[in-house]
Amino acid sequence: MIRTIEWTDHGVVMIDQRALPMEELYPCYTTYQEVADAIQTMVVRGAPAIGVAAAMGIALGIRQIRDFPSDVYEGKFEEICRTMERTRPTAVNLFWAVRRMRVLFERVKGEGPEEACRALEQAAVNMYHEDIAINKRMGFFGQQLLPQKGTVLTHCNAGALATAGYGTALGVIRAAREVGKDIQVLADETRPFLQGARLTAWELAHDGIPVRIICDNMAGWMMQQGRVDCVLVGADRITAQGDVANKIGTYSVAVLAKENSIPFYVAAPVSTLDLSLSWGKEIPIEERDSSEITHIRGKRIAPEGVDAINPAFDVTPHKYVSAIITERGIAQAPYLESLKSLAEKP
Amino acid sequence: MIRTIEWTDHGVVMIDQRALPMEELYPCYTTYQEVADAIQTMVVRGAPAIGVAAAMGIALGIRQIRDFPSDVYEGKFEEICRTMERTRPTAVNLFWAVRRMRVLFERVKGEGPEEACRALEQAAVNMYHEDIAINKRMGFFGQQLLPQKGTVLTHCNAGALATAGYGTALGVIRAAREVGKDIQVLADETRPFLQGARLTAWELAHDGIPVRIICDNMAGWMMQQGRVDCVLVGADRITAQGDVANKIGTYSVAVLAKENSIPFYVAAPVSTLDLSLSWGKEIPIEERDSSEITHIRGKRIAPEGVDAINPAFDVTPHKYVSAIITERGIAQAPYLESLKSLAEKP
Repeated sequence: MIRTIEWTDHGVVMIDQRALPMEELYPCYTTYQEVADAIQTMVVRGAPAIGVAAAMGIALGIRQIRDFPSDVYEGKFEEICRTMERTRPTAVNLFWAVRRMRVLFERVKGEGPEEACRALEQAAVNMYHEDIAINKRMGFFGQQLLPQKGTVLTHCNAGALATAGYGTALGVIRAAREVGKDIQVLADETRPFLQGARLTAWELAHDGIPVRIICDNMAGWMMQQGRVDCVLVGADRITAQGDVANKIGTYSVAVLAKENSIPFYVAAPVSTLDLSLSWGKEIPIEERDSSEITHIRGKRIAPEGVDAINPAFDVTPHKYVSAIITERGIAQAPYLESLKSLAEKP
Repeated sequence: MIRTIEWTDHGVVMIDQRALPMEELYPCYTTYQEVADAIQTMVVRGAPAIGVAAAMGIALGIRQIRDFPSDVYEGKFEEICRTMERTRPTAVNLFWAVRRMRVLFERVKGEGPEEACRALEQAAVNMYHEDIAINKRMGFFGQQLLPQKGTVLTHCNAGALATAGYGTALGVIRAAREVGKDIQVLADETRPFLQGARLTAWELAHDGIPVRIICDNMAGWMMQQGRVDCVLVGADRITAQGDVANKIGTYSVAVLAKENSIPFYVAAPVSTLDLSLSWGKEIPIEERDSSEITHIRGKRIAPEGVDAINPAFDVTPHKYVSAIITERGIAQAPYLESLKSLAEKP
C-alpha cells in the first residue's frame, strides 16, 4: 500500500512527491508552518491529499498554541487556518478541510485547549480514513463506465498519491481492474512537474497495472489513431454548472477527446464541488514560478533572459465533460441539476 | 546571423542543436557517414535543414569515393544516397534533396569523378543559398496574414535553425517584424526534445523578438483565454489534399485553434509538398527511442520498467489548416487544387 500521508505521534509523515520515483523519502513535519510549506512546495499535492494535509497541519498547529494565553488563543487558531488557506488557491478541498476544522473548533473550544487538540486531531485522522472510503465508493460507481477491455488516458496524477489512498481517477481504474476489467493506462507526462511520468507511472507500476507514458503533446495523436478508449482525470474544483478546474492541460485533453468522440470522465469527491461558483471563469487559477518550466532538475534549459508563463491549472467547460464520478453516484448533464442533487444527497 | 549549417573547405560545419542554448558548439563533419549520424541524432533537425545537410553530406561522400575503381563507383554513390535516406523517414525534403543530387549525378557522371565532385558540391551550396531566398520569399507572402499587433503561437522550431537560415514559420514572423508589425511569440516548449524552449526561444531572443515559453499542455488554455491571435508552424511533409505532417503535438494545437476560432497557418517550401501522397495516413511517422521521454539530460525521470511511446510527428488533417504559406504564394482550401497549382507554377 502506498503511504501518501500519515498522522503519527511525531507529526505528519508524507512521502516527498518531488523526489519520486527515484527516491522514496518520508520526511516528518512537526509544525503547521512546515506542513503549509510542504503543500506550497508540492511535497504533497492533489486536491484531496492537500485537504487531508491541511487538516493534519491544523491539528499540529492547535497543539503548538495550546498553552497560549486565552486572549490570543483564538486569534492564533485563525492565523493557522489562514496560513493553510494561503498555500494554494485553486483546489477547493483545501478550503473545505479548513472550514471543517474551523467549525469543529467553534464547537469544542469551550471545552479547553486539551479537548480542542484531541478533537481536531481526531477529525484530521477521520478525514484521512473517510477519504479512502470515499475513493473506494467512487471506484465502485466509476468502474461501470469503463469498457471490459481498453486503454484509459489520464492526465496528471489523480491517484493514491493525490489522496489519502486509492485515488480518484486512478481509484476508478483500480476498481475496474478489481472486477476483472482489462484496463491499461496511457499517462500524460504532465509538464512541468511531471506528475504523470513520475507519480502516476510509479503508483500504477507499483500495483502491477500496465501503464505507458506519453508526452502531453502526444495525447491528441493517440486519440486520433484510435488508441484511447476514454479519458479519466481528477479535479481541483467543480462549479455548479459542471466546469472543471484541474491540472493545466486537462482542457486540451477534453477538447481533443470531444473532437475524437471519446468520453471524457472526471472523478472527484463531493468536497471538490464548489456550488457557490457558477462558471469556471470565477475559479482562481494559480500561477507558479516560471523557473519550473525554464529549469529541469535545477538546471536551466531555456536561454538566459527568456521567461515562461506557468498557469498550474485550467478550466474545462462542462460541455466537454461526459460524466462526473463522485462517491454519491455519477452526475451527467445538465450538471446544474445533477450536481446539486448529489450535493444534497444525505 | 545564426549559422545553422555551412559548407567549408574542411567539411560541413553545423551548430550542435542538442547543446543549445547552453552551449554554442560548431563541430565539423568530414564524411557522409558523420553527416548521416548528425541527422539521425538531431545535431541538425528541421525539414529544410535536413535537406541541405543531406545534400552537403552527399557532396562529401562523392569526394570520399572519387578514387574508387569505376566498376564500384556508381554503386558506392547509390550507397551514399541510401545512407542519407535512411536517417529519418518523415521529412520529405530529405528525399527531395537526395533525388536532386541523384539526378545531377546522372547528368555529370560521364564527365569524370572530379567534375562530379565539383558539380555536386556546387549544387549543395546552391541549395543552401536557395533555401534562405525561399524563406525570405515565404516571409514576404506569409507576413500579410499576421495582424498589425498580436501574439503568434508556434510549436517546435521552424526557424533559422530548422533551415539554412531565416526560417519558415519564424521567417514569416521575422518578415512581419521587418515591416513594422508588433508581433510577439508564445513558444510551445515541445517535448521531448524541447525545440521550442531551447531553439525557438534562443533564436528569437538572439534577434530581439519577444518570446515566452509555455509547456505544450498550456497552448489550449492560452487560446481559450484569448491570448493567442494565430498559430504558425512549419511542416515536414504535406500531401496533395493538404494534410500536414509536422512535429508531434501539431495536430493537437490545430484542433485547439479551430475550437477557439483561431487561424492555423503552415509555412513550408514547395519542396515539402509530396503530391504523390493523397492522405496523411500514408505518411510514415518516425517512432524514436522511448528514452527521449523517460530520461532528461541522461537521467531517468520515469520509474524503472515503465516504458514510453514516442512518435516524433503527427499529421494534421487539412480541415484544420487555414492556409499553407509557400515561396510561391499562399494556398487555401481546397488544397488539392491550390497546392497543385503552386507546385506547377514556374
